[in-house]
Amino acid sequence: MKECKFVSIIMGSKSDYDVVNEAVKVLEKFGVAYELIVSSAHRSPERTAKYIKEAEAKGAQVFICAAGMAAHLAGVVCSKTLKPVLGIPVGGGALNGVDALYSTVQMPGGMPVGTLAIGKAGAKNAAYLAVQILSLSNLELASKLKEDREAMVRAVEEDSAKIEVLIKGE
Amino acid sequence: MKECKFVSIIMGSKSDYDVVNEAVKVLEKFGVAYELIVSSAHRSPERTAKYIKEAEAKGAQVFICAAGMAAHLAGVVCSKTLKPVLGIPVGGGALNGVDALYSTVQMPGGMPVGTLAIGKAGAKNAAYLAVQILSLSNLELASKLKEDREAMVRAVEEDSAKIEVLIKGE
Amino acid sequence: MKECKFVSIIMGSKSDYDVVNEAVKVLEKFGVAYELIVSSAHRSPERTAKYIKEAEAKGAQVFICAAGMAAHLAGVVCSKTLKPVLGIPVGGGALNGVDALYSTVQMPGGMPVGTLAIGKAGAKNAAYLAVQILSLSNLELASKLKEDREAMVRAVEEDSAKIEVLIKGE
Amino acid sequence: MKECKFVSIIMGSKSDYDVVNEAVKVLEKFGVAYELIVSSAHRSPERTAKYIKEAEAKGAQVFICAAGMAAHLAGVVCSKTLKPVLGIPVGGGALNGVDALYSTVQMPGGMPVGTLAIGKAGAKNAAYLAVQILSLSNLELASKLKEDREAMVRAVEEDSAKIEVLIKGE
Amino acid sequence: MKECKFVSIIMGSKSDYDVVNEAVKVLEKFGVAYELIVSSAHRSPERTAKYIKEAEAKGAQVFICAAGMAAHLAGVVCSKTLKPVLGIPVGGGALNGVDALYSTVQMPGGMPVGTLAIGKAGAKNAAYLAVQILSLSNLELASKLKEDREAMVRAVEEDSAKIEVLIKGE
Amino acid sequence: MKECKFVSIIMGSKSDYDVVNEAVKVLEKFGVAYELIVSSAHRSPERTAKYIKEAEAKGAQVFICAAGMAAHLAGVVCSKTLKPVLGIPVGGGALNGVDALYSTVQMPGGMPVGTLAIGKAGAKNAAYLAVQILSLSNLELASKLKEDREAMVRAVEEDSAKIEVLIKGE
Amino acid sequence: MKECKFVSIIMGSKSDYDVVNEAVKVLEKFGVAYELIVSSAHRSPERTAKYIKEAEAKGAQVFICAAGMAAHLAGVVCSKTLKPVLGIPVGGGALNGVDALYSTVQMPGGMPVGTLAIGKAGAKNAAYLAVQILSLSNLELASKLKEDREAMVRAVEEDSAKIEVLIKGE
Amino acid sequence: MKECKFVSIIMGSKSDYDVVNEAVKVLEKFGVAYELIVSSAHRSPERTAKYIKEAEAKGAQVFICAAGMAAHLAGVVCSKTLKPVLGIPVGGGALNGVDALYSTVQMPGGMPVGTLAIGKAGAKNAAYLAVQILSLSNLELASKLKEDREAMVRAVEEDSAKIEVLIKGE
Repeated sequence: MKECKFVSIIMGSKSDYDVVNEAVKVLEKFGVAYELIVSSAHRSPERTAKYIKEAEAKGAQVFICAAGMAAHLAGVVCSKTLKPVLGIPVGGGALNGVDALYSTVQMPGGMPVGTLAIGKAGAKNAAYLAVQILSLSNLELASKLKEDREAMVRAVEEDSAKIEVLIKGE
Repeated sequence: MKECKFVSIIMGSKSDYDVVNEAVKVLEKFGVAYELIVSSAHRSPERTAKYIKEAEAKGAQVFICAAGMAAHLAGVVCSKTLKPVLGIPVGGGALNGVDALYSTVQMPGGMPVGTLAIGKAGAKNAAYLAVQILSLSNLELASKLKEDREAMVRAVEEDSAKIEVLIKGE
Repeated sequence: MKECKFVSIIMGSKSDYDVVNEAVKVLEKFGVAYELIVSSAHRSPERTAKYIKEAEAKGAQVFICAAGMAAHLAGVVCSKTLKPVLGIPVGGGALNGVDALYSTVQMPGGMPVGTLAIGKAGAKNAAYLAVQILSLSNLELASKLKEDREAMVRAVEEDSAKIEVLIKGE
Repeated sequence: MKECKFVSIIMGSKSDYDVVNEAVKVLEKFGVAYELIVSSAHRSPERTAKYIKEAEAKGAQVFICAAGMAAHLAGVVCSKTLKPVLGIPVGGGALNGVDALYSTVQMPGGMPVGTLAIGKAGAKNAAYLAVQILSLSNLELASKLKEDREAMVRAVEEDSAKIEVLIKGE
Repeated sequence: MKECKFVSIIMGSKSDYDVVNEAVKVLEKFGVAYELIVSSAHRSPERTAKYIKEAEAKGAQVFICAAGMAAHLAGVVCSKTLKPVLGIPVGGGALNGVDALYSTVQMPGGMPVGTLAIGKAGAKNAAYLAVQILSLSNLELASKLKEDREAMVRAVEEDSAKIEVLIKGE
Repeated sequence: MKECKFVSIIMGSKSDYDVVNEAVKVLEKFGVAYELIVSSAHRSPERTAKYIKEAEAKGAQVFICAAGMAAHLAGVVCSKTLKPVLGIPVGGGALNGVDALYSTVQMPGGMPVGTLAIGKAGAKNAAYLAVQILSLSNLELASKLKEDREAMVRAVEEDSAKIEVLIKGE
Repeated sequence: MKECKFVSIIMGSKSDYDVVNEAVKVLEKFGVAYELIVSSAHRSPERTAKYIKEAEAKGAQVFICAAGMAAHLAGVVCSKTLKPVLGIPVGGGALNGVDALYSTVQMPGGMPVGTLAIGKAGAKNAAYLAVQILSLSNLELASKLKEDREAMVRAVEEDSAKIEVLIKGE
Repeated sequence: MKECKFVSIIMGSKSDYDVVNEAVKVLEKFGVAYELIVSSAHRSPERTAKYIKEAEAKGAQVFICAAGMAAHLAGVVCSKTLKPVLGIPVGGGALNGVDALYSTVQMPGGMPVGTLAIGKAGAKNAAYLAVQILSLSNLELASKLKEDREAMVRAVEEDSAKIEVLIKGE
């Protein structure tokens, strides 16, 4: 992958870093370039808008947005770009992330945000989905994804081997 | 009230009109000037931002925002103004407005949206709250609010009179 | 702001103090006068009613009410005053504040409670909204709000600077 | 039962009448005296307080309160009396009565509201519970309750007889 | 109160004891006699049925039932007695007591369970409601309830005095 | 299958008949004998207990219980038998069957109720699961299940054929 | 029971082991043979499919599937076998297992998954239900179930004896 | 776009057609090739697996999966392909699509499903997101997306023009 095609990760608050780091780990495993910034839909709307323009100019292909509570970040980014936007609802507050999930996924027609699970699993999967999207025009990435999936199967088998109880057939 | 102090009502979609009309009726009852436009947080973010600036310049004192689903409108308006922003979650979709409620009320610290009930009751109350806010520096409005509240008591009494069953004391 | 224009904060129980303190910090930052008392909608209804009258007479402009569970305090205060009433749903119980949220926000038509987020973010925002309301007739406050919002943007930038990862454009 | 011992039914809005009527039918079936009025916790708080005093003076033994949305009526009545208060959450709005249920049942310690099911089943049961309470010192009522319960069993048998499919034992 | 009129407390599992103890403390404060047993709706249905009969014969006036998860205990007790049955939904499991609340409060018509809040507040209030019911034919209890309520008001005032911030009127 | 091995269907109210009929249709399709009665956990507990004994004596292998609201029927049946009990939560009330689902599925340890989906799909599946259970010792039934599953696949293909849009491969 | 009739337990992730262990303990108490493996619906679908075939060939009578989040495992197993499938929704994530419950229980018509409670109680009950199913053609198991149920009653009595408070009848 | 790059739409049941048709309309507007079939995760798992292989071979770039209730379809497809999978939760049942939403979005780490809103808005947005993904390597599509977004702004302006109320500035 040429360096100018990258994934842009925006988190609404620095407190979302632990969650977002799961996405970073996946992107690094696949050798996919990324940017990572803090910018809020509400506290810094101009900064967010300006960043999106600059990121697009530099080659951002997919935006990953992580936010909690009334999580508007992914929606706001979606309203400023035509690149795919993926949303990570961040939990941890009074409503355990249901507020962030609904605020991210229930977008009106014409404004898509591909939403992943609440929290770390969602962050991991946002990166996986971004890699899958990039792999459509990048055979090397597609090949890495295949290897990674095969490794998942082996990991399940290894996990099972440690605890499984099997009856001998006759 | 001088004509330049008015309430600005923004709805995210024309389909929110029936709900928003409850707010209009209250403002008209109190003789409070208002503007009413359709502008979406997502589909027309520049239009929304531009309108807020113009409305402030013309004298908007309070913004009332009505939206459904992942209702970001009030939050987006709040991020662009320092005037009080009131949010009406609009129901009617799969989640009956719980999505709109959470997306409107669960704003992060520093970005307040005074949120009212889902649907028509909320629209009515957004207007009432706007009138109460304006009445802080408008004695005539304060006086109208007092009369209106007294009329509510009488309305309860009249409602009751039609169906009440009372036991005679000894 | 003259000393007689103040914000009145009522909490339903002393256990709400930690939450309410977030509102106090905001009001003190803006130099806005406030009162703070404990009074319950249920355990001390006469005290609550008497206090509202006295607070209005002394110059209360906005009431901020914090309560948990079946949080009736804001609604009860609203039924006794025509000043704007803002509600903070306090979480922490079995239902994590969803009960308090619904009990505060779902007010019937004609009885508005501007409701903020559950817990500390909501307390902070109730104070912000109160300051915004007062700033409509107080230019100094309006100016402080502007500075405060600009500081928010800088804070986002500083947060980001510590962790951001940027790709150099060509 | 002497005429001065009666059940007082308060509904928050005349629109609750259809629900409340289920309670009336039960009380009439058992020959229990009742009063029925409309009075709102919010729109007519003084009226509500005044009525409770008068009803107590005339002999009200149990208060049944029906309200929807942020249903504060039962809680407010509870704060004004030491007689048992039973609450009927009324559904029908955006949240289908979950708001009314939480607002009625989640009362803080020391302020009990015996809460029944949402809507008509709850209204019926509020009346049944009131009759059970009165029957503690009224043998005639206790006897009627026993007959009524026996009739329920027969009704189940009759319902079943119309549609049941049974296998003959050997 | 004569010793033969008492409140019967049944808990579905010994793990409910901490919650139920809040009810015990209230009954002891008011000097109301009570029984307390563990008996499960599911694991020991015959024991439960047998106990209800015996308790009634000894003078049980009100049954208080505490159970968690699919909390059937109050409903099952209600189906075996015509005395008032009060339900305490016990939280703590995966669904935080919402399952217990719905299983307790949503009883079908004719089978009333007066339901209180989830957990300790509900246990406290179940006892309060039982005392209120007994006080209808016990003037001494009614008088104690009055004193207790007055003490609540004083407690609120004392709580407030420790933290309140008041502005001096002019 | 011998006639004395049958499935017993109990519904809590005759209003559950439409839902339960979906189970009947499946059992008839597979030629499985069944009984069907109305008996309430609450209104007719003795009848329910007596029926279970008789049904077991006649050869009931599996009990299917359908009830709405605070759906205790399956749990009560489970407490009276050691045969497998399957629960159908019936919707339609204020809480759309979530109350019935939680009341049926959240059974405490040692008291299993195999719970199916809310409403008609659940009724259909309760019957399917009963047939699967009976098929463990009935080869003819096992064979019918296999044919039925194959027919499902064909039905999907036929459904698809009517509306599918396919691109020709190269 | 012959050794070739056994219960197969599949968990979607090794992190489900603590929950699943509750099922193992019940099966061991009743002397029922079992297999236990880790296999994911998503990460190792072929392994899952292959295992089901092999387990059936060796004599699996009932499948117990435990999974969290979007818990598809039980449904996927159900789609590959005609043996009874029991589902344990595993909690612990952001949604506390409500996601796993809905994903497990809301199966479409024709694809039954007998669903138990969220977490450990559900695991225990899945094993109980499996034992009940096997006991239909195994008199020894039926007899053990009877003893076990009687022991439950005694356990309740012993629990109660430690804390019960009883009034002496006259 | 060459004909061999297409979007594959799979619906779990023909009853999902009305929802899925919203996606079809978007794809046709943008001239994007698509396939559309009915195939169930549960009722026809082999057919689903076989179709995915064939579709990939023919050039499927993105899979869009629509299903209701315990909506496993998108997850199952994700487990069989490394192409991006987008999920549309279909509502309409007892739980209004919350079950389908949780079953679709809460995927475990490594298995991403980009989830859109419940129902028709989600179907529309699934197609939009698919078009955005394809546009990353298709300039013509990217250009059409830009025109389409501009048309959205104009549509908002036209909607507003019909109902807006504006105050003349000075």
